[in-house]
Amino acid sequence: MTQNPADLSADLDARARELDAHVFHSWSAQAQHPSLVIASGRGCRVWDHAGREWLDVSSQMVNTNIGHQHPSVVSAIREQAELLTTVAPATVNLARGEAARRIVSHAPAGFQKVFFTNGGADAVENAIRMARLHTGRDKILSTYRSYHGNTGAAIVATGDWRRIPNEFARGHVHFFGPYLYRSEFWATSPEQEAERALRHLSRVIEAEGPASIAAVLLETVPGTAGILVPPPGYLAGVRELCDRHGILLILDEVMCGFGRTGRWLALDGYDVRPDLITFAKGVNSGYVPVGGVIVSEQVAATFDERVFPGGLTYSGHPLAMASIVAALDAMESEGIVDNARRIGAEAIAPGLAALADRHAVIGEVRGEGVFWAIEFVVDRATREPVPASTIARIKAALVDRGVLPFTAENRIHFVPPCIVTAEEVDEAIAVFDEVLGSTDWARA
Amino acid sequence: MTQNPADLSADLDARARELDAHVFHSWSAQAQHPSLVIASGRGCRVWDHAGREWLDVSSQMVNTNIGHQHPSVVSAIREQAELLTTVAPATVNLARGEAARRIVSHAPAGFQKVFFTNGGADAVENAIRMARLHTGRDKILSTYRSYHGNTGAAIVATGDWRRIPNEFARGHVHFFGPYLYRSEFWATSPEQEAERALRHLSRVIEAEGPASIAAVLLETVPGTAGILVPPPGYLAGVRELCDRHGILLILDEVMCGFGRTGRWLALDGYDVRPDLITFAKGVNSGYVPVGGVIVSEQVAATFDERVFPGGLTYSGHPLAMASIVAALDAMESEGIVDNARRIGAEAIAPGLAALADRHAVIGEVRGEGVFWAIEFVVDRATREPVPASTIARIKAALVDRGVLPFTAENRIHFVPPCIVTAEEVDEAIAVFDEVLGSTDWARA
Repeated sequence: MTQNPADLSADLDARARELDAHVFHSWSAQAQHPSLVIASGRGCRVWDHAGREWLDVSSQMVNTNIGHQHPSVVSAIREQAELLTTVAPATVNLARGEAARRIVSHAPAGFQKVFFTNGGADAVENAIRMARLHTGRDKILSTYRSYHGNTGAAIVATGDWRRIPNEFARGHVHFFGPYLYRSEFWATSPEQEAERALRHLSRVIEAEGPASIAAVLLETVPGTAGILVPPPGYLAGVRELCDRHGILLILDEVMCGFGRTGRWLALDGYDVRPDLITFAKGVNSGYVPVGGVIVSEQVAATFDERVFPGGLTYSGHPLAMASIVAALDAMESEGIVDNARRIGAEAIAPGLAALADRHAVIGEVRGEGVFWAIEFVVDRATREPVPASTIARIKAALVDRGVLPFTAENRIHFVPPCIVTAEEVDEAIAVFDEVLGSTDWARA
Repeated sequence: MTQNPADLSADLDARARELDAHVFHSWSAQAQHPSLVIASGRGCRVWDHAGREWLDVSSQMVNTNIGHQHPSVVSAIREQAELLTTVAPATVNLARGEAARRIVSHAPAGFQKVFFTNGGADAVENAIRMARLHTGRDKILSTYRSYHGNTGAAIVATGDWRRIPNEFARGHVHFFGPYLYRSEFWATSPEQEAERALRHLSRVIEAEGPASIAAVLLETVPGTAGILVPPPGYLAGVRELCDRHGILLILDEVMCGFGRTGRWLALDGYDVRPDLITFAKGVNSGYVPVGGVIVSEQVAATFDERVFPGGLTYSGHPLAMASIVAALDAMESEGIVDNARRIGAEAIAPGLAALADRHAVIGEVRGEGVFWAIEFVVDRATREPVPASTIARIKAALVDRGVLPFTAENRIHFVPPCIVTAEEVDEAIAVFDEVLGSTDWARA
């Protein structure tokens, strides 16, 4: 039943762990090395070299929207590898044009150009650059509950703790976005949360001086910060505020775009038209590093005769381009986005609701498509978050039982590939149920 | 004789040009689209879909050190694509460890860890981050004649014009490096240039306040700025200044590393030991987007117990890792670095010297390995640069005759893959000779 194509040998796991001494890891203290070896994967499953299997409800970094090792994307990478792996950006390449055409076909009307980068962070960097040069203004407003990438401007646009040791960019201002479960605005309904969050943003814009603000930068659905689906009216209200003051709206779709919410872009669910859209992850499921900015005609026109002062060696890298073409074609022909929507509504929503009913340590579940957060609390009344150590122990127990989750602060994000089946959802939720029932986690 | 594996059809070139309307290009005004279609390549040759062939002495963006489509690297990418394309960074993966081990094997003693990024820019971002957190200081000193990448901090560390519209990061100070042909120090010999450049840097350090300076960031051999081989004693002198003041030295080997100079790392040619080394391009010839920081044990130790506040989804991406392993193994087993050294000394140096003898528009040729600049001047006495438009016309004439050069300001960089043969060098230089003889370029 296993389709694990890796060489099966526990020695290789040991060898991989030994060589990991040479790897300096992201966002961590280096004395602790990760222990989970991943050698291969297929669909929603991954394996180590010993043949152990995990059901992946993390999509790794919420990026394998099409699942692991989708055969047609793997084939496209292999074919393009034979033809041409790399080429300078200041050339014309067919795979690049084909990828750009497909991407703009999923964007709102009036978006005709794509600037390709190596990932989400430099997509955000370049969107910020475009907004500043287009408006002639400096400030970028973004929310405290956000993550936009690890490079100079992107990390300071980021709101979470990771910004704080990295505040070496100027022109960034943070505000609070809507999050009813932990409202910053003493709101008690989604409508009130939207209204008050807009009032707050409006006050920040006025107080900062509208003429100094180039753009508001928002994840359409903030992801790592907790999968904070915006309440009805919020994004349209932000657009209105931006229009009133000549401010651009950048929607960051790096995590929420390309199927994750059960729509092609998360913004398709809202009455909002941004000026710039950033993407990465889901566009090719991260099979080859890539990201980019989808540029509206108005912003693009600013750089028709004026040199755009940004660029990179691997912009429009053929191998990445071929993987985008194949991934988007497969998502389209196999109905993968619709599967995410349907499984979200029919399997994940009821499954997580039942889980919350059975375990008091769950304060809230929220999400859509294959983009869900489970919020763990010590007490449902106070909503006090469980400590990070509790989440680490729940994660360890899940991994032990063959389920790979995505964790953040006091939350577990249930974010499987968009191709996940109802049976796989049920299988994962049964393991969650078992783990959550095994201990009094609120007091653990 | 052609090995062009692309579908041969001029229609595909037309199609590629048509779809290029959807591509927003690096560092350019978008109304002008590039016209050169590149469909495939092999070794030092590239082809369009009509079967036209070019001898590539640009290595695209000075990155295809191993040449185009090296069979063993292509195979490695194809094999890893079958096994596992992508995996989260907080896991253990064998290809990642194997790549890291090989990279540190080419670094000086005392470098044991590699932090992987998606390219050179985010490598520089993370080296700057490490230096600031290690020293507890803010300022990064870099030269005016430099290029370090297009993201927030990297672009402001960059010295050239591309920094100026992007100055949104704080803590960056620029100084002048050695460049005898256009000395900023009224020097007349390499020894004097080194001595005076060090005196200048010493004065900048004193004037800025040594205790405010985290790092000096230098390309070991500045590349895009003009292939400015540092004079004897300069880099050792910089190291000494850094040591005196507790300042870290970051050597940027993104362009000059992994064979380009005829050495594994450019720094191998100097009596200098940096604290951090950035790399990209040549490490895998850009076949898959990747870069990174090689971290000295002292700096790495800072993050043993303290969380490193940087990271990215595609850090240590398996497809990129497999391409690094194969590229470094092929470079080693095929003697590719030594070939670059030998061809530089035996074919490129005498070939370009003869070219300079025959054409007064050449003010200077300089370089080593497969890393050479030809500086074009209106007048050899005044050294006044030719205008950029002249270089564009020379480039067009070269491309017309089947040679693909790398251009920058008043220069053409002669930077073929490290695998280039003496015959290919002679072939390219003969075309240069023909083009340079066809017009009085100093007056054109």
